[in-house]
Amino acid sequence: MKEDIAVIGLGTFGFELAVQLSKLGHGVLAIDTDEKKINAIKDEVSVAVQADVTDEDVLRKLEIEKFDKVIFGMSNALESIILSIAHMKKMRVKYIIGKANTRIKKEILLKIGADEVILPEISTAQRLAERISTPSILEKFEIDAATSLIEIKVPGKFHQKTLKELDLRKKYGITVILRRHGASTQVISRPDIKLEMDDIVFVLGDEAVVKKVFVD
Amino acid sequence: MKEDIAVIGLGTFGFELAVQLSKLGHGVLAIDTDEKKINAIKDEVSVAVQADVTDEDVLRKLEIEKFDKVIFGMSNALESIILSIAHMKKMRVKYIIGKANTRIKKEILLKIGADEVILPEISTAQRLAERISTPSILEKFEIDAATSLIEIKVPGKFHQKTLKELDLRKKYGITVILRRHGASTQVISRPDIKLEMDDIVFVLGDEAVVKKVFVD
Repeated sequence: MKEDIAVIGLGTFGFELAVQLSKLGHGVLAIDTDEKKINAIKDEVSVAVQADVTDEDVLRKLEIEKFDKVIFGMSNALESIILSIAHMKKMRVKYIIGKANTRIKKEILLKIGADEVILPEISTAQRLAERISTPSILEKFEIDAATSLIEIKVPGKFHQKTLKELDLRKKYGITVILRRHGASTQVISRPDIKLEMDDIVFVLGDEAVVKKVFVD
Repeated sequence: MKEDIAVIGLGTFGFELAVQLSKLGHGVLAIDTDEKKINAIKDEVSVAVQADVTDEDVLRKLEIEKFDKVIFGMSNALESIILSIAHMKKMRVKYIIGKANTRIKKEILLKIGADEVILPEISTAQRLAERISTPSILEKFEIDAATSLIEIKVPGKFHQKTLKELDLRKKYGITVILRRHGASTQVISRPDIKLEMDDIVFVLGDEAVVKKVFVD
């Protein structure tokens, strides 16, 4: 069974989250104080309720403790969020996810009892900085502290070279795992596969080493 | 040479972005109307300037057209952002990245001439919905329209089975590429590698198929 989720605060984040979770098969209770937002979302989720979550009686009537996760979509009304989380902790709500727009708010929500707090503005800024910094790295996938899987363009210097010739594993401890050429993606199974400039490859290894080897 | 970047608006997003880009070796010009923010960031970036970017003369004095990218960190003052982008388009600024907190603002900024607009709240909500929906999927990496690389926990039903026995490639067209067991990560090179429950594997294939095969 898919978990039942309550989403509180239907701004851009909460609205998107509630609709996506509903599409993915979850039972979703959407809550906001604004009737307009409730009307806008009511056909997209299981239940939509206009309610004030700073009121403990309201939370009890909604049986908020029966939901597997409660997620706050709002981050500005700090006092309301804190009050609401405090009630929920008393009611033994299983898992509370907060959202914050500054690091200090994240710390506060964790102290009040949120199990997890996400920071959309900061995580997006970090992703954007990385993308701008190494444009030939298309995506990055951290596997563990020392190893990443990096999607990167093949530089001109590797054009028409085979993996055997380049010998990247022995020389630098990095492994080319996949090669994308136009629309086709192939798993690297033989070392005589030839790379071409602007092919996309997925390389496993230390990020700094991969950058050094691949970026011209 | 690393690109020179101008970041306008030093809220949570803009501040983080400017500092990260600077750490990554970029020349960064940070701009805000608030002196406090300028003081807070001035030791972290190349240049920090208190300025009003709705004023074309100011933009000309800053030689904003010489930067490789201009990124807006603010999304609330829509009128100011629109005015500023309009001036920059006249000045032939190379690449403008906007930020928006609603889809309609994104459309507007693209129409005014932004080259790209990011939506932190919406992209974070989508990621969170996916993570909640399939908790055994730890990360997902889209390779092309039909293929993803999916980091997923090995289910109980595959415990102590070899990849040869499971024969996932022939049966379902999906390929296990990496296996993480405790602190060690290994590239799957032989089909007699045995999986264990709660190992993490990286599987290449159609996402829906991978989910179906791996999720209990």
